Amino acid sequence: MQKIRPFSLVMLLLSGMAAPSLARGASADPVEAIRSAALADQTAYDFVEGLTTEVGPRPAGTPQEARARDWAVARLKALGFSNVRAESYRMPVWERVRDEAQVLAPFPQKLVLAALGNSASTPAKGIEGEVAYFPSLAALEAAPEGSLKGKIAFVSHAMHATQDGSSYGYFGAVRRQGPSIASKKGAIAILIRSIGTDKHRQPHSGVQMWADGVKPIPAAALSIPDAEQLTRIISRGQPVRIHLTLISRMLKDQPSGNVIAEIPGSDPAAGLVLAACHLDSWDQGTGAIDDASGCGIIAAAALHAAKTGTPRRTIRLLLAGAEEVGGDGARAYFAAHGSEHHALAMESDFGADRIWRVDFGLGKGQEAIARRIADALAPLGIAASRVAAGGGADIEPLVKSGVPVIDLQQDGRRYFDIHHTPDDTLDKVDPARLQQNVAAWAVTLHLAANASESLANK
Amino acid sequence: MQKIRPFSLVMLLLSGMAAPSLARGASADPVEAIRSAALADQTAYDFVEGLTTEVGPRPAGTPQEARARDWAVARLKALGFSNVRAESYRMPVWERVRDEAQVLAPFPQKLVLAALGNSASTPAKGIEGEVAYFPSLAALEAAPEGSLKGKIAFVSHAMHATQDGSSYGYFGAVRRQGPSIASKKGAIAILIRSIGTDKHRQPHSGVQMWADGVKPIPAAALSIPDAEQLTRIISRGQPVRIHLTLISRMLKDQPSGNVIAEIPGSDPAAGLVLAACHLDSWDQGTGAIDDASGCGIIAAAALHAAKTGTPRRTIRLLLAGAEEVGGDGARAYFAAHGSEHHALAMESDFGADRIWRVDFGLGKGQEAIARRIADALAPLGIAASRVAAGGGADIEPLVKSGVPVIDLQQDGRRYFDIHHTPDDTLDKVDPARLQQNVAAWAVTLHLAANASESLANK
Repeated sequence: MQKIRPFSLVMLLLSGMAAPSLARGASADPVEAIRSAALADQTAYDFVEGLTTEVGPRPAGTPQEARARDWAVARLKALGFSNVRAESYRMPVWERVRDEAQVLAPFPQKLVLAALGNSASTPAKGIEGEVAYFPSLAALEAAPEGSLKGKIAFVSHAMHATQDGSSYGYFGAVRRQGPSIASKKGAIAILIRSIGTDKHRQPHSGVQMWADGVKPIPAAALSIPDAEQLTRIISRGQPVRIHLTLISRMLKDQPSGNVIAEIPGSDPAAGLVLAACHLDSWDQGTGAIDDASGCGIIAAAALHAAKTGTPRRTIRLLLAGAEEVGGDGARAYFAAHGSEHHALAMESDFGADRIWRVDFGLGKGQEAIARRIADALAPLGIAASRVAAGGGADIEPLVKSGVPVIDLQQDGRRYFDIHHTPDDTLDKVDPARLQQNVAAWAVTLHLAANASESLANK
Repeated sequence: MQKIRPFSLVMLLLSGMAAPSLARGASADPVEAIRSAALADQTAYDFVEGLTTEVGPRPAGTPQEARARDWAVARLKALGFSNVRAESYRMPVWERVRDEAQVLAPFPQKLVLAALGNSASTPAKGIEGEVAYFPSLAALEAAPEGSLKGKIAFVSHAMHATQDGSSYGYFGAVRRQGPSIASKKGAIAILIRSIGTDKHRQPHSGVQMWADGVKPIPAAALSIPDAEQLTRIISRGQPVRIHLTLISRMLKDQPSGNVIAEIPGSDPAAGLVLAACHLDSWDQGTGAIDDASGCGIIAAAALHAAKTGTPRRTIRLLLAGAEEVGGDGARAYFAAHGSEHHALAMESDFGADRIWRVDFGLGKGQEAIARRIADALAPLGIAASRVAAGGGADIEPLVKSGVPVIDLQQDGRRYFDIHHTPDDTLDKVDPARLQQNVAAWAVTLHLAANASESLANK
């Protein structure tokens, strides 16, 4: 890993914790004051606790997501934000009804699984077929055309946890592309090993989109222990027959929406700093780490960023709808607001664990503001990198249009143990780690919103 | 904790691991030879892998338990045991059909739960009621008679993991007694916080028996994250209404059975050494730690115990049926074999983690054989205690009748994370820890089966 400049042994030792006591004498520094206050503040945790308890699961386009918008509007107003409102749009909705699977032969037993987004529904009585096993997506791709006719494809993989989350992009192709490939080769259904890194009977759901012209088939993720069990059963060498009941339905033209809140700046011409998260969640858990935490972090951080006075630039929160199912909220935001001057966009959508790295995607010649932000983050154990920031789904259209971006990278080693499972619940959020996120976001938003320079190309 | 005599720093440092290389020069010692060979042998793991894969869940009195008996008879014969047979009996069976729950108000959302054994069934359309919250069993007991009329009782508790598993006996009363108490006070159903120590959406099932004259009501365990969520919802102070659908059925007079296998000894008059486990499991998982591991341990250990020659005493394995639902197998064994001379009884039914302590329950004046066994266990990091051995459910009638007993106590810190949940699967079994169990059992069975003295009162 590249570091932008040397840092002391003390910083290394402090990695992962803040040390307000060592910062004595610096309390006149507004950045230090913001960092310390944010580290000690529970606003973010209270936000996560409230949204996950009082709303719970909030799938895009459902009445639960609508309740989440109402909840967020009320909470953000109560926290003192300005211009708080929901901005609505409509979208199609895939809805899970029931997921059941049984090995019929040679060793009858139930399997735990969850249909993937946009899965076709089986008939109410289910379907039955012989399993065709593939240890990887490459093996599935190599299967001859038509060779899966009448069969249930089962695709495994070897995903392991990584700090930067990069294993998700790579192994996630099993979920994103596997169903379309299996359908093209004639499969009547596809099962995948959950895209996750845990060992619990918790299937990881997630969206997949059918490739053009492909017939939708029932598609589901087995929990990892179930995927391992099925692999062992297959290894006995006898034909394996499975019965699948995956009932779901598609609803057209349902209401969804984004929630917007602002801390108005003093200089409208300087553009706005956008902080994004998403309000929707998958249906199985209460979306504590994905992404109530991101919304709690940006809301608490924006308040701290402005505690030392009205910022130069408006800080705007975007609590996007429908991130999990394709980004309808991000596109609706861009359609409505893409023409406004965005000086910077940032997104928090990788759980509640600590930030370990900051990546910059500012304009050419903006090393000075990057260094000021890196300096402010270093006491939190965060190292500046030379990796280019890329943002995430909620701000993707903005970043593609050239808006500068900074990524505060969270530690992803636990994330895919929980991601998109029933286990995404409040108890997985560590308040101290969450508050480290708030502190990092607060100083970053403060410095970016108050920077005298532009953040774009010089 | 008391130790029976001082032991060296080396033993302390070795705690938890065997050190064959340090035992060089002792290979002529049959105990050391058995211990080393057992530590390196995968027979127990293969047994657990086979039973959990090729049979899977095996609730008492079901066709799956019958398949487990067939599987065990075949495997034990293949391993070279003598007199291998199933001994059958009949019993009533409670069977889970479907468990669903939803908070209706004030914050609509699903809850994850599992009916407890012998729960009454709700009608197919479910039941609905307001929740009455009790933070402990004592609080439920203190509720006035009739005060729960029409309500759904919800009882929480504060169970934490302990090494000796003692928290289960204490807090388990919420499951064992809570349903009868709630019914007596007029409740229409009871929910408990699962008797467990994890933070996963995995409800812990388990048996409970209705007290005499009590009307059965629907009774279920919420997963611990769900119990915490419901507690938070209740803490908002608004009335909480829940809809419950807990469908189950009772079957009369179903076949169950024990499996017996032996290594015949040379001296029938010396009595037999009984090693017990149970073959049945709860329905949600594959019963890897509860109790396929116990059966794998005793089978592998008996083979190693006899590797140096025919033992003086017969070593008999009892793979009991129906342990989870009340001990029908243990009672059937005692009815058929209680009059035979049992020199010693032992049981393995606390998972697959390492043995850390040995407790003795031998006759008066049997310090010499206890010391020989303690000496043989010490290199495995196992400390002898002054706690009296008590055995477990599978050998309870024997122990009550006065048969000497030794307990090889397993580390229980992880056990109640998994116990009676869907998560009780093969991946939770650590082969090295399992083999430490086999080594400890092998040397204990070897010394007990070959002891020249009786193990009863001198």
